[in-house]
Amino acid sequence: MTRLELFENIKKKESYLCVGLDTDISKIPKHLLKSDDPVFEFNRQIIDATKEYTVAYKPNLAFYESLGPQGLESLLKTVRYIPKDVFTIADAKRGDLGNTATMYAKSFFDFYGFDSVTIAPYMGHDSVKPFLDYRNKWTILLALTSNPGADDFEKSEMKNPKSGLGTLFGDVLTVSQKWGTIENMMYVVGANRVSVLSEIRKIIPDHFLLIPGVGAQGGNLEEVSKAAMNKQCGMLVNSSRQIIYASSGEDFAEKAREESKKLQAEMKRYLENNY
Amino acid sequence: MTRLELFENIKKKESYLCVGLDTDISKIPKHLLKSDDPVFEFNRQIIDATKEYTVAYKPNLAFYESLGPQGLESLLKTVRYIPKDVFTIADAKRGDLGNTATMYAKSFFDFYGFDSVTIAPYMGHDSVKPFLDYRNKWTILLALTSNPGADDFEKSEMKNPKSGLGTLFGDVLTVSQKWGTIENMMYVVGANRVSVLSEIRKIIPDHFLLIPGVGAQGGNLEEVSKAAMNKQCGMLVNSSRQIIYASSGEDFAEKAREESKKLQAEMKRYLENNY
Repeated sequence: MTRLELFENIKKKESYLCVGLDTDISKIPKHLLKSDDPVFEFNRQIIDATKEYTVAYKPNLAFYESLGPQGLESLLKTVRYIPKDVFTIADAKRGDLGNTATMYAKSFFDFYGFDSVTIAPYMGHDSVKPFLDYRNKWTILLALTSNPGADDFEKSEMKNPKSGLGTLFGDVLTVSQKWGTIENMMYVVGANRVSVLSEIRKIIPDHFLLIPGVGAQGGNLEEVSKAAMNKQCGMLVNSSRQIIYASSGEDFAEKAREESKKLQAEMKRYLENNY
Repeated sequence: MTRLELFENIKKKESYLCVGLDTDISKIPKHLLKSDDPVFEFNRQIIDATKEYTVAYKPNLAFYESLGPQGLESLLKTVRYIPKDVFTIADAKRGDLGNTATMYAKSFFDFYGFDSVTIAPYMGHDSVKPFLDYRNKWTILLALTSNPGADDFEKSEMKNPKSGLGTLFGDVLTVSQKWGTIENMMYVVGANRVSVLSEIRKIIPDHFLLIPGVGAQGGNLEEVSKAAMNKQCGMLVNSSRQIIYASSGEDFAEKAREESKKLQAEMKRYLENNY
């Protein structure tokens, strides 16, 4: 999917909502367990219920991998089921040597057909480049994540910083801009990082951001949107648990629809204020 | 596997060789393609041919994932086929939030039954801890990798370095020592990093190192062994392509045996010099 297509979908649906498919077989409603493929069945109903309000789906690879090859079958069916006009993100956080990165790119882009994949920057440019070589596919690089461990290295100060932020994640933002363009790279910034979002926007004013952590993880949608939105929206806000586990009963899909609709209505207001 | 068991195997086999199972279906001998599961068949023959000289096998996850769920079936069969006294490494370089890391740990330790998994440090302590919570399982943290991209961030100098090395990978070594012990953590240092290996040994004298990059990637086994070996060996040296693709013909397993035997004979000398 191109940047323009993504932006058109955002305008059409008046939403920049990404639904995280962190589908945990121990958390899905019990009545689904008698289906042939409970994980896919859950996802199918969540997608049907939320797609009207959603511009992206983000399956979290770990949840599928924990079930072995069968979990990857559920993932494949899920990606194929997602409507073509909805952006897909393989939340995989890979990062490896060039020839290995090429294999991961093959996996996510060629085999599963994802539009994008999340990548960890630690190993540098040759671990990212094979993903950028794909046309109309996206690399979503970790910058500043929402977890407590971000304090350990991401926020460390650099001796010769390459950005005004002075930190490792600032270096990641600055250095990686030479690798790709606003047409094939996005960055992950946690929703609880509002205070630095406007600083980050000075370094990457035009890139799309993938912002997880609204809802269960405590991020505030209004504050995040004010700090991060640019003239082409420039952001996807992810919510996982708040939507997909809104109810643990037979009404889970209906409750997921309500939650996603509520977030979309709020997003609509922020988009209107912006344009 | 415990540290003591690993060390006993090293002494018994007089080897610290790890064979990297970077099994690429486009590179394996053509006659295997008519087998039901060519990837597993290749691995099975490589394991049979090399296990006498090998203390660890390291499947590279990307190569299996690129084939979708079927590739993971081949991986599962491979891990089950590896003799129980040989250490297994899931070269996966994962790194994600706590609840996601828990799922990855489940996948590699519970589902596949690996002894260890490689982990990227970027996201900090809570992305590593779930792996360390497993008894007799190992976390192998990326420190200084062998690829050119290591210059981008790993080797960057820190403003308030936490190690005498002054670099990000030095901080990773120092900070992460608080998370685990020498009984459940190892570190990845590329074989082409000989000049810093002895500096690294000052920070982590007792930890095992996983050292990839001998052979096809140009690392020198003698230099690496002199710089990194400690009193309990303390190192696993990985070779992938040099062994598994020693021949592209029907004699591939025999040639792999010869290559691994050659490396083991050299390792035997360095072990003897050390004790």
